[in-house]
Amino acid sequence: MIAASIVGATGYTGAVLTRILAGHPDVELQALTSTSYVGRNVGTVFPDLRVRGQYVEYSPQVLEGSDVAFVCYPHAQAHGVVAELVDAGCRVVDLSADFRLKDLSDYQSWYGFEHPRSDLVEEAVYGLPEVYRAEVTKARIVANPGCYPTGMLLGLLPAAGEIDSRGVIVDSKSGVSGAGKTPSDKTHFCSVTENFRAYSEVGHRHTSEMVQELGLAAGTALPVSFTPHLLPVDRGILSTMYFKPSGRLLDTEAWLDRYRLFYADEPFVEVCEHVPALSEVTRTNFCRLTVRTDERSGLVKVFTVIDNLMKGASGQAVQNMNIMFGTEEGSGLEGLA
Amino acid sequence: MIAASIVGATGYTGAVLTRILAGHPDVELQALTSTSYVGRNVGTVFPDLRVRGQYVEYSPQVLEGSDVAFVCYPHAQAHGVVAELVDAGCRVVDLSADFRLKDLSDYQSWYGFEHPRSDLVEEAVYGLPEVYRAEVTKARIVANPGCYPTGMLLGLLPAAGEIDSRGVIVDSKSGVSGAGKTPSDKTHFCSVTENFRAYSEVGHRHTSEMVQELGLAAGTALPVSFTPHLLPVDRGILSTMYFKPSGRLLDTEAWLDRYRLFYADEPFVEVCEHVPALSEVTRTNFCRLTVRTDERSGLVKVFTVIDNLMKGASGQAVQNMNIMFGTEEGSGLEGLA
Amino acid sequence: MIAASIVGATGYTGAVLTRILAGHPDVELQALTSTSYVGRNVGTVFPDLRVRGQYVEYSPQVLEGSDVAFVCYPHAQAHGVVAELVDAGCRVVDLSADFRLKDLSDYQSWYGFEHPRSDLVEEAVYGLPEVYRAEVTKARIVANPGCYPTGMLLGLLPAAGEIDSRGVIVDSKSGVSGAGKTPSDKTHFCSVTENFRAYSEVGHRHTSEMVQELGLAAGTALPVSFTPHLLPVDRGILSTMYFKPSGRLLDTEAWLDRYRLFYADEPFVEVCEHVPALSEVTRTNFCRLTVRTDERSGLVKVFTVIDNLMKGASGQAVQNMNIMFGTEEGSGLEGLA
Amino acid sequence: MIAASIVGATGYTGAVLTRILAGHPDVELQALTSTSYVGRNVGTVFPDLRVRGQYVEYSPQVLEGSDVAFVCYPHAQAHGVVAELVDAGCRVVDLSADFRLKDLSDYQSWYGFEHPRSDLVEEAVYGLPEVYRAEVTKARIVANPGCYPTGMLLGLLPAAGEIDSRGVIVDSKSGVSGAGKTPSDKTHFCSVTENFRAYSEVGHRHTSEMVQELGLAAGTALPVSFTPHLLPVDRGILSTMYFKPSGRLLDTEAWLDRYRLFYADEPFVEVCEHVPALSEVTRTNFCRLTVRTDERSGLVKVFTVIDNLMKGASGQAVQNMNIMFGTEEGSGLEGLA
Repeated sequence: MIAASIVGATGYTGAVLTRILAGHPDVELQALTSTSYVGRNVGTVFPDLRVRGQYVEYSPQVLEGSDVAFVCYPHAQAHGVVAELVDAGCRVVDLSADFRLKDLSDYQSWYGFEHPRSDLVEEAVYGLPEVYRAEVTKARIVANPGCYPTGMLLGLLPAAGEIDSRGVIVDSKSGVSGAGKTPSDKTHFCSVTENFRAYSEVGHRHTSEMVQELGLAAGTALPVSFTPHLLPVDRGILSTMYFKPSGRLLDTEAWLDRYRLFYADEPFVEVCEHVPALSEVTRTNFCRLTVRTDERSGLVKVFTVIDNLMKGASGQAVQNMNIMFGTEEGSGLEGLA
Repeated sequence: MIAASIVGATGYTGAVLTRILAGHPDVELQALTSTSYVGRNVGTVFPDLRVRGQYVEYSPQVLEGSDVAFVCYPHAQAHGVVAELVDAGCRVVDLSADFRLKDLSDYQSWYGFEHPRSDLVEEAVYGLPEVYRAEVTKARIVANPGCYPTGMLLGLLPAAGEIDSRGVIVDSKSGVSGAGKTPSDKTHFCSVTENFRAYSEVGHRHTSEMVQELGLAAGTALPVSFTPHLLPVDRGILSTMYFKPSGRLLDTEAWLDRYRLFYADEPFVEVCEHVPALSEVTRTNFCRLTVRTDERSGLVKVFTVIDNLMKGASGQAVQNMNIMFGTEEGSGLEGLA
Repeated sequence: MIAASIVGATGYTGAVLTRILAGHPDVELQALTSTSYVGRNVGTVFPDLRVRGQYVEYSPQVLEGSDVAFVCYPHAQAHGVVAELVDAGCRVVDLSADFRLKDLSDYQSWYGFEHPRSDLVEEAVYGLPEVYRAEVTKARIVANPGCYPTGMLLGLLPAAGEIDSRGVIVDSKSGVSGAGKTPSDKTHFCSVTENFRAYSEVGHRHTSEMVQELGLAAGTALPVSFTPHLLPVDRGILSTMYFKPSGRLLDTEAWLDRYRLFYADEPFVEVCEHVPALSEVTRTNFCRLTVRTDERSGLVKVFTVIDNLMKGASGQAVQNMNIMFGTEEGSGLEGLA
Repeated sequence: MIAASIVGATGYTGAVLTRILAGHPDVELQALTSTSYVGRNVGTVFPDLRVRGQYVEYSPQVLEGSDVAFVCYPHAQAHGVVAELVDAGCRVVDLSADFRLKDLSDYQSWYGFEHPRSDLVEEAVYGLPEVYRAEVTKARIVANPGCYPTGMLLGLLPAAGEIDSRGVIVDSKSGVSGAGKTPSDKTHFCSVTENFRAYSEVGHRHTSEMVQELGLAAGTALPVSFTPHLLPVDRGILSTMYFKPSGRLLDTEAWLDRYRLFYADEPFVEVCEHVPALSEVTRTNFCRLTVRTDERSGLVKVFTVIDNLMKGASGQAVQNMNIMFGTEEGSGLEGLA
């Protein structure tokens, strides 16, 4: 049994983690920490979670004995706790952005803080299993990818080597849970229902992850023009991506074959003939995707759908834990939805 | 031209009032006051309002010259401003509950404050035009009815004299805008979409208004069991009401005839053959309703729909203003939606 | 292993059954029959179902070897198939209304057809496990309850003996999946979003089941005034119920205690302190409920929530199958949602 | 007064036209024709339309005396009626695609029919007032633009001369009313709510209009890669567009200035500083848009929002009628929403 704790368990990603881990056959759930709900029962804070337990205040002590900790703190607030836990011998899956970027200066330019632990940044493994499965196995820190980068990378990695130098366009549409649980004008029901909008329309922070990982896969830097939009749905991200191939234009079937080959052994990526809808992956850890050649414009279009709280966050975090501890990769993740 | 101002113009009811009054042919819009948005343009705060103007801080001075003020403050915070304005000679339509109840002790028991102005409470007219049109004409203070009481009373007043002493059951379902613009866990999109719940399931404050006005119409006190629910929609209230007639059970057609007669001259109440849906009144000042006799159980069912921000608040407030100033009762209220 | 087949597998209840049974540890899924999709793969018709298999045309032969068949045909069209299967030795859970009513004349008056098999009507067990668990164990035909009656009965059975002779009021609000998968004006997205309405506002067919079972529990006939409404959500039913107790008015805590006692051993009924929201049971087989005493009006209010496709149909059907075959009652039903 | 009729008045565009024209100060509404609802009252078919009148069967006779007819037939079914009416001396605003394309062969390749009236195709004016206002004035046939092309063209026309030869990417998201009133699996509430998908993901028919008009504005053919998506909202289209400028990369402010200049005199196009949300134009005839320079990728992003039934169909049709008959261009179109 893996002894697992969740640090910052009362946001959306923490709640989804709680649900998954409570039903995971190989996990014993240890501490659930919270800042706002210390002493309250899980079932009181989240009536739809049928999980026993009480939230406790975070301290290294309450995590003693945990084999792994999932850290669900906001960006720039996670790295301290992560370092503390790792230094104390606990392996960590960090759901923040604090260890995703390899170039230290990126933390300053994209997230506005100076990162104090270059050693851990270097050591941390970017937790996209489809690329870094081997490294995750031994990782002390897994930097769990952002929701948008997950959907984007799964859609473009198989083609990375063949993308024209002008780069890619990533037009993403996300459900509201991606904005987090803290109420705001933007997430008020009356602002969202029967509405739709772009936001962070230039320079959204997730661009940095996309550029880093796509560049690594392509072997060369490629510009990424990323635009997120807010859908009037609870969960899910659909990304529509466009690129011009550097070589000659293959047809749709040829692209589909490549993608199928690329993901042939992946348990959580499904290459589809049809254009997948968001609801096909909601409350699952699957990414579904398809590719189309647009002969008229000479472009390739890629469509991916994921659940932002599952494959885009907590589900992928558990997938990473499974890999880290050598259990079945899909353990605890089947049968959802 | 009527010089009109809005005190507390940046909540939902204030915004809807702004839109109506800006397009009202007989109104000149004066001050729009706000506490949070002083100095900001209307179009910046509400991009969908194509109205010029800037929010100012409230003071009696900025309202000088106004013939009428719409006060959109929360309960218990409105009466001071209302009194100040009325004492200064400005007529007021108060959208709060602060002058709706006739029994002074009710303010203590239902709203938790001691009302300092019994004289104005006595003088104020309950602004349901279908009952108090004549009184509204001359009123200095119109206490604009609550959203739930409006839908409930329009549905039960025609039958008030024939309701069995056990009283009425009022099962209401409201859109989220009824909860106001301040973000909270309860109004977060993810808490509301694909969800539904009852709230204030016993003893909601609007019960007091319902009991008062139904009792007056019936000539005797009648118990009201009221249950509000939160619909995953922006606007609108549907109330389903049940009562046992004190006399013999009339059939549906007989009830419909009575209701038609009762509302024959009303510009904003439409008695329907069919069971009206919420969308039929959204963004209008209409109340639609129908009646059904349930022979098996010996009960009468009444269904009413209103837009909570229109006939349930701002639309009715303008209707009252039109009556107060002798303009066409529907002026500024046609052509909406 | 239980060999199970689904007759009429391509409606909503059939699809949910397919998902549950495909993941059920004690079930081997046999034939899935369809009229419109013969020869098509499950995953093509329902892309979100990750289940292998092909739809076949119904015949008694394709069901040979099945221990149990779930019949998901419309009312009046199911009884022939049910009879055929039972006569051939297959046990049946019938999700239609064709065996729910005990009085043969009710089929004529509520459903408009003459029932040809009085013997099977008499033999069939009304599949509400909380009442008829023992009978279900040995049943050849389980008449799976309607969605509205399930939510209503679970809310009123514990109080049945103490309801005043005037009976009960049942105000129910259901998601759109309750209307079935066939597209119509009523289920068009644009007719439903931001809308809400009552329908079958007097005399909905499910009233017959409610009257029958409440009367049996109460030991006397009690009138039921039932009004269904259509919520702009996919799944779930919330029922708000009102009755006057025949004895003295107990307080909320006393009622809660009784309900807790009544359901103490029930795996799928949860008596709550709080008023449960729809989302707490969505995609689960649970019914959550609470009770409130309304001192002012002398009434008791009961609130129940279920998922209409789970506890209201397919989930309850599987619960019944589990009871029939002596497997763990919750088998295949945990971990959903 | 303009005598106006609607041919095919019982679809969504016909219903919106009915509402606008019934409230239009310069219009007298004549015949409303229908195939399915002959003899039924407007208010019965559309309970939210408070318009008197009855649907009649189409014949040239029932339109006699009409100055203008709005033809709301499906593509390929409109041209016969349009020709008949024009030949009889009635001016026509055709909401179908039957006269939008100038190259006759396009009707075959995009819409699958041979166009019998090359003379009228040549004569017809593409009814985008922002480009063809002068021509609309005298037109006998106005080919009212498609919903997607309207949003796309208003966003790209000001930049048409400066778009790199690789062309433009148009990623559009539309509400469900764009799919029409006929119920289908795709428009079933349960298929749409909490869902999102692309459709016609390569080669949607509206591409032909976009290519034609963008090419004319640019003075050269430009490839258009267009992808429509289905939003879980009733009304509205948001288009996100990407292009590389042929010259040097201007900054956002410079682009905004150009757009403002281009649309300085346009009553229904609003260039915004902020990124406009769908709800800002719902139920209005406005198009709102903004432009952003993405320095990192060297691309320009344009965002436009329209209501697909208003500026994208019926509202624009009335705007065209106003221009044709020399009335105030915004007549009947203010005060909506």
